[in-house]
Amino acid sequence: MFEKILIANRGEIAARIIRTCRKLGVQTVAVYSEADKDGAFVRMADESYLLGPAKVSESYMNSTKILTIARESKVDAIHPGYGFLSENASFAKKCEQEGLTFIGPSWQAIESMGSKIKARKMMENAGIPVIPGSNTPLTTAEDAALAADRIGYPVMLKASAGGGGIGMAEVYNEQELKKVFSSNSKRASLLFGDGTMFIEKKIVNARHIEIQLLADSHGNAVHLFDRECSIQRRHQKIIEEAPSPFISESTRQRMGRAAVKAAETINYQNAGTIEFLVDHKENFYFLEMNTRLQVEHPVTEEITGIDIVEQQLKIANGERIEYDQESLFITGHSIEARIYAEDPVSFYPSPGQITRWELPEGIGIRHETAIEKNSKVTPFYDPMLAKLVVSGSSRSEAIQLLNDALEDYRVEGIKTNIPMLKKVINHEKFIEGTTLTSFIEDHYLPMLSK
Amino acid sequence: MFEKILIANRGEIAARIIRTCRKLGVQTVAVYSEADKDGAFVRMADESYLLGPAKVSESYMNSTKILTIARESKVDAIHPGYGFLSENASFAKKCEQEGLTFIGPSWQAIESMGSKIKARKMMENAGIPVIPGSNTPLTTAEDAALAADRIGYPVMLKASAGGGGIGMAEVYNEQELKKVFSSNSKRASLLFGDGTMFIEKKIVNARHIEIQLLADSHGNAVHLFDRECSIQRRHQKIIEEAPSPFISESTRQRMGRAAVKAAETINYQNAGTIEFLVDHKENFYFLEMNTRLQVEHPVTEEITGIDIVEQQLKIANGERIEYDQESLFITGHSIEARIYAEDPVSFYPSPGQITRWELPEGIGIRHETAIEKNSKVTPFYDPMLAKLVVSGSSRSEAIQLLNDALEDYRVEGIKTNIPMLKKVINHEKFIEGTTLTSFIEDHYLPMLSK
Repeated sequence: MFEKILIANRGEIAARIIRTCRKLGVQTVAVYSEADKDGAFVRMADESYLLGPAKVSESYMNSTKILTIARESKVDAIHPGYGFLSENASFAKKCEQEGLTFIGPSWQAIESMGSKIKARKMMENAGIPVIPGSNTPLTTAEDAALAADRIGYPVMLKASAGGGGIGMAEVYNEQELKKVFSSNSKRASLLFGDGTMFIEKKIVNARHIEIQLLADSHGNAVHLFDRECSIQRRHQKIIEEAPSPFISESTRQRMGRAAVKAAETINYQNAGTIEFLVDHKENFYFLEMNTRLQVEHPVTEEITGIDIVEQQLKIANGERIEYDQESLFITGHSIEARIYAEDPVSFYPSPGQITRWELPEGIGIRHETAIEKNSKVTPFYDPMLAKLVVSGSSRSEAIQLLNDALEDYRVEGIKTNIPMLKKVINHEKFIEGTTLTSFIEDHYLPMLSK
Repeated sequence: MFEKILIANRGEIAARIIRTCRKLGVQTVAVYSEADKDGAFVRMADESYLLGPAKVSESYMNSTKILTIARESKVDAIHPGYGFLSENASFAKKCEQEGLTFIGPSWQAIESMGSKIKARKMMENAGIPVIPGSNTPLTTAEDAALAADRIGYPVMLKASAGGGGIGMAEVYNEQELKKVFSSNSKRASLLFGDGTMFIEKKIVNARHIEIQLLADSHGNAVHLFDRECSIQRRHQKIIEEAPSPFISESTRQRMGRAAVKAAETINYQNAGTIEFLVDHKENFYFLEMNTRLQVEHPVTEEITGIDIVEQQLKIANGERIEYDQESLFITGHSIEARIYAEDPVSFYPSPGQITRWELPEGIGIRHETAIEKNSKVTPFYDPMLAKLVVSGSSRSEAIQLLNDALEDYRVEGIKTNIPMLKKVINHEKFIEGTTLTSFIEDHYLPMLSK
């Protein structure tokens, strides 16, 4: 196993990775921005180094500085977490050139899946159903309008290099398309350095269901079943669960096999996730592949008993996956609720100092967080405070457990989305397990205006 | 399912039971002494009633008052937790007479297992190996000396009605036996209302390994495998784990089958535990049966995915066990460390006010506690503050996780046994998994005098 690794991330995911490293006897190096100097993850690591000012380009996205620290602190490998440099092929390539192991897939795999257009094509070639869409890069509103005409409205306009819902728009007619194309393309160009767009047919009444994969460097690939992530606000997930309450066992198996085949086709290595949209007839369509650890990975860990971060380190270290598909099975049901420092109505971030921080404990409750009492939530990064992960023997048990845990969660000093989470999980559609990606618009927002 | 139950207990186990009740949609009634009026478990319950002064005879052992509250609050059932009235046959009988379900076995089963002498005989008749010993009640030192002569020294002198190590003594010769008999018999008489003693051969190099049982009212009984509880101070467990690192798979199966047979023989219903002493050749001997929930039940929950408190409620409600033996299996390894408010050297309780209380979180970590910041630890009850339960895919992972969690545990204002726990789990004998019940005397105490 590696002797020492650097964690090129912050907050809860840095803490999460450090815990598994400790368990495996791997030394850890944290890097942090000035805004995070009092962060719990900084203290938890064996060594820690200042990157620079709060601004991400000067801290968590500053690959030159991170690689310098990696060299000087003599680490064997770098774990990028999620976000920041985790899906940056050029960073992964630089790691390789420096003789450092990037704990993730090859830079070539990141690159091919980073271009949404290229990814669509590769998946289509592998026989994975993709959403009908434009298969050529769109750079003008006119080309986009032609493609949309061919596919039929409504369509989703997306940035080829995008992520996190940025540059994405739901479009119902040509006029609208022409209006949003240039602004969204400009935003993508600004944020991702690439303004290329593409169009997909909008799948109505869709669910977001994804398959967790593990693949090693010896040609073995397995899936760890599915996660249901339909509850999203502004195209960002807030509640995730495993397994999905919607799909049948045979669809689960078919989606899992399709995902494994996709991983094999592109010679993928390490942990990864294939996201699908699933319609009401359980037809599934490739949405995108995340070539990194997902925020919501804990629900899969809970139903399989597998530590995914541990598997990432072992695979990156050249070890074989210890499991074959037949030895894997689902035990119980797990739900994750993301606790955000945000206004539960406007969804605006609510930075500030936390004056009370008391978490519910007990059977089936797991917390992933790097927040402590007196922690300051700064406006510089994603305002997620913690992930509350519950597990029960059935979905209804898990929902009840989550409800009770949210009731007992005590955060003061800032606003949180806990009131929103409670409303969502107590809604009959959620309890029935018939939620769509439009849940927040269809059911939560109307509740607020009552 | 029951609509409302009363929990005749306090602290972490009351909180533990309330959490499962909430999950099942069962209303809860807490009862508390004046010393516990600010306890978290009191607030967590749907209703709560004062029992009386701190003294246990006027509060948690005051069965008349508890039954009055049960009647007035219109509960369907009473969960006794562990300790206090949990193995009090006459209380269980009174519940039955009042038309209340006692969440535990029948009063007859409690009574038969409560007399250690009677229990030995019943187990012997069921074909379970028992430790060679006196099979008749001993009331005088002379009778005890005769029995000890026949069995051969060293012997264990025990109170027939005893528990928690009270009245127990290790005796190496007749002179010693005569010296301790009357004082121990008097203590037993005072504490349990019965001074009857018995003698067993002392099993040298013994391990304490127990089997968790579930048995329903339809004649079904299963075991949930074993727990290793050899790490004890003053005959009280402080670290427990599942499964035992010592016994072979075939011994595990044989012990499990013996325990199920014992439960069937005595027509046992509800959760229960059969404790065994196991010698270096993996011979196992019946030690006693605990006819209640054990403090250390969470480690079994972690390796089986079964909520034992939920099973207790379902069985008490007349439901069938949902599992058969073949469908049960062990996943991973779990260890529980009991966090006590006590001096780590003298083992004396350390009451006081808790000024800091920050618990480690993350994958594989579970806390069972009713302590909060500013909680007062009073001198009236057992000074256990919390149970830290960790689970990993292997024993070595679980030990590492426990070590890291203990490092991150922050308690201030009182002394705790955390320094002791750290020393124990880092000792080579513990890491090897070759601990005996004499571990603290053999290895921990010598470390202190260095």
